[in-house]
Amino acid sequence: MRTLNVELGSRSYPIHIGRDLLQQQALWLPCLRGRQVMIVSSETVAPLYLDSVAGSLREADREVATVVLPDGESHKTLASVEQILDALMAHRFGRDCTVVALGGGVIGDVAGFAAACYQRGVALIQVPTTLLAQVDSSVGGKTGVNHPRGKNMIGAFHQPLGVIADIGVLDTLGERELRAGLAEVIKYGLIADAEFLSWLEANMPRLLARDEQALMHAIEVSCLTKAAIVAEDEREAGRRALLNLGHTFGHAIETGTGYGTWLHGEAVAAGMLMAADMSCRMGNISTQDVARIKALLEAAGLPVAAPAGMDADAFLELMASDKKVLAGQLRLVLLDAIGNARVRADFDPAMLRATLEGFRRAA
Amino acid sequence: MRTLNVELGSRSYPIHIGRDLLQQQALWLPCLRGRQVMIVSSETVAPLYLDSVAGSLREADREVATVVLPDGESHKTLASVEQILDALMAHRFGRDCTVVALGGGVIGDVAGFAAACYQRGVALIQVPTTLLAQVDSSVGGKTGVNHPRGKNMIGAFHQPLGVIADIGVLDTLGERELRAGLAEVIKYGLIADAEFLSWLEANMPRLLARDEQALMHAIEVSCLTKAAIVAEDEREAGRRALLNLGHTFGHAIETGTGYGTWLHGEAVAAGMLMAADMSCRMGNISTQDVARIKALLEAAGLPVAAPAGMDADAFLELMASDKKVLAGQLRLVLLDAIGNARVRADFDPAMLRATLEGFRRAA
Repeated sequence: MRTLNVELGSRSYPIHIGRDLLQQQALWLPCLRGRQVMIVSSETVAPLYLDSVAGSLREADREVATVVLPDGESHKTLASVEQILDALMAHRFGRDCTVVALGGGVIGDVAGFAAACYQRGVALIQVPTTLLAQVDSSVGGKTGVNHPRGKNMIGAFHQPLGVIADIGVLDTLGERELRAGLAEVIKYGLIADAEFLSWLEANMPRLLARDEQALMHAIEVSCLTKAAIVAEDEREAGRRALLNLGHTFGHAIETGTGYGTWLHGEAVAAGMLMAADMSCRMGNISTQDVARIKALLEAAGLPVAAPAGMDADAFLELMASDKKVLAGQLRLVLLDAIGNARVRADFDPAMLRATLEGFRRAA
Repeated sequence: MRTLNVELGSRSYPIHIGRDLLQQQALWLPCLRGRQVMIVSSETVAPLYLDSVAGSLREADREVATVVLPDGESHKTLASVEQILDALMAHRFGRDCTVVALGGGVIGDVAGFAAACYQRGVALIQVPTTLLAQVDSSVGGKTGVNHPRGKNMIGAFHQPLGVIADIGVLDTLGERELRAGLAEVIKYGLIADAEFLSWLEANMPRLLARDEQALMHAIEVSCLTKAAIVAEDEREAGRRALLNLGHTFGHAIETGTGYGTWLHGEAVAAGMLMAADMSCRMGNISTQDVARIKALLEAAGLPVAAPAGMDADAFLELMASDKKVLAGQLRLVLLDAIGNARVRADFDPAMLRATLEGFRRAA
C-alpha cells in the first residue's frame, strides 16, 4: 500500500492506494467522526462491495445505514442528493455522522455534495471504485451535481477526511469504464508531466491488460499530480483550472448528447484532442504533437471525434455556460507544449469555430 | 450611518446600518464582483424596493436579473433554491456574478444557499428588510433551507461580501414581524449582555413605536454581539452555539406546527422562556429571573406558551433531530445567569420533560 497526502493545513487528508483496503478497519477508523455512518453506493457497486464494507464497520461498533442510487451521469441530480438527505434525516443522523461514497465519480460527487449540505457539512470518506474516480474525482474536494443546462453547475468544495483507493476493485470494472479512466490519466501527462506521457505511450497495453503494477504506478502519479495542484490552489483561483484540460469541450458533449450517453472520460478524451488541435492552430504545439496525442487516445480506445449531430453552434452554445467564463469571456485550457498547459482567453473565436468544424467533419 | 465589521481574515465584511442605504451605490459597488447581479426578493418586498434597487444597479452599468419568491417559511425549500439556480443558468450568469438577497430571513437563507451552491460559490450581498434579518440572520454566513423533518437541516456556511441594513425599510414592516425581530434582540441581552437587557426593559415602548434612535441602537448592539461571536467561532465549533438560545425548542415549534404558522422569532421567544424555565429548575437562575424574562417577552407582544396541541412527546420527538445532537445526546443552550449562557448536555431528561409539561399546561 502507498499513502499520499493532500496538504491543506487543518483539512489535510491521506489517499491510501493498494489492494484489499476495503475491509482494513485501521485505514477507516481515523476517518470516521461519530458512530453513525451512511454508505452511499450505486446499483452496480453495491451488490459487489456494500455488504462487506458495511459489515466491517458494524464489527467496529458503528451504526451503519445505506442508500443505493441508480447508476450513471443522468442520476447526478439534486433529486439524488435529496434522497441521501432524506435517508440521513430518517435515521436521525447527527452532525457527527460520516458519509461514505462507495462508487464511481457520480456517487462521489453526489454523496460528497450531500455531506457538504447536511447540517451545513458532515464528514466524508471517498472510496472510489472506478479508475476515473481513483485518479481524479475522489481527490480534491469538488462535489456537486448537474443542471439540465450545464455539467457540475451546482455544488460545493468539501474535502474528504480520507480517500481509500482499492485497486482490487478494478478487477470488476467494465472495459469501457477502464478506458474512460485512462483519459484522465493521460490528462496528467499532458498538463504537467511529459515523462509520464511517454511512460503511458510505452505502457498502454499493460494498463489495458490491468497489469497491477502498471495500474498502481498510473494511479500514484496521477494522485500525486492532483494532490500537488489542489494543495496549491484548493478553490481554483488559478492553476487548478489546468485540471480541466478538455473539460469545457467535454462537458458540452456530455450535456449536448444527454448526460450518460458518453462517459465523462470519453467526452474528456475528445475534448483534450480538440484543445490540442486549437493549441496547434494557435502555433503553440506542432501537428506532430497533436498526432501523438491522438495516437495515445486511440491506443486507449477513446473517442477522438465529436458526437454525430453536434455541430459547432451546438458546442458554442453549451460552452458559453462553462464555469470558466468570466466577464462573459470564455476561457480555455490550452497546451503550450506536451506537459505544459495554460488557461487562455486570448484566442480568436474564429479559431475555436474552425477547430469545432474540423471535428464535425471528422465525425 | 454606522459601519461594523465582521472580522474573518480574507472573508471579513462590513455591516452598514442606517437610513436610505438602498440606493447608495458607494456602499454597493465594493461588494459586487462582476457585472452580473441576480436580485432575489419576495412577493411582499419586491413591490416596495426591487425596482429602485435594480434601477440603481443598472445605472451603475450592471446586468440585473431578478427572482421573486413567495413569502414565508413554508417556501424555505430546496425547490426555491432550484428556482434561483434555474434563473442563474437561464441568464448564463458566470462564476463572477453576485447574488443579492433583498428580503427577510427566508430570502437571505434561500438566496444565500443558492449563492453558496451555484458554480460551487458566487458572491453574495445581504440586504435584510426585516428587523429579524437585520439583527441576526443576515450576519454570520449561515444559509440553508428546511427539511420536512427539521429546520435548517440543509445548507452551507457562505459569508456575504457585505450586509446593507437600511432601517428605513422597517417603516413598512408589519407589526407582527417587528415583534418577532425583537425576540432575537432580546436573545443577545440574555446570552451576553445583562446591561443591554435592562436597556431593552426600559426602552421596549420606544422600540414598538419604531423610534429611530432606539431601533438603531438595538440593531447596532445586536450586530456587534453577533459579529464578535461569529469572528471567534465561524463554524460553530463552540461559542457560536449560544446564539441558538431557545432555538431547539423554537425549531420544534416551527416544524411541529407546520413551517410558517409561527414566525421564527415567535417560536424563539417561547423557546427562550422554556430554556429559562429549565435553567431555573436546574438551580442556575432564580424564579425572579424567569419572571423578568417573561415580562420582557410579554412587553414585546411575544408568545410565552407552547402552541396548543403540542405536548411534551411531540417536542421531544422533534428535538431529537436538532443539529446540536452529538453522539445521540441532545444539547441545550441554558442560562447560568441573565447575560451568560452555556451549552449543556448534563441535564436530567426528567427536568426537560417537566419544563415541557409546564408549558403545555400553560397553553
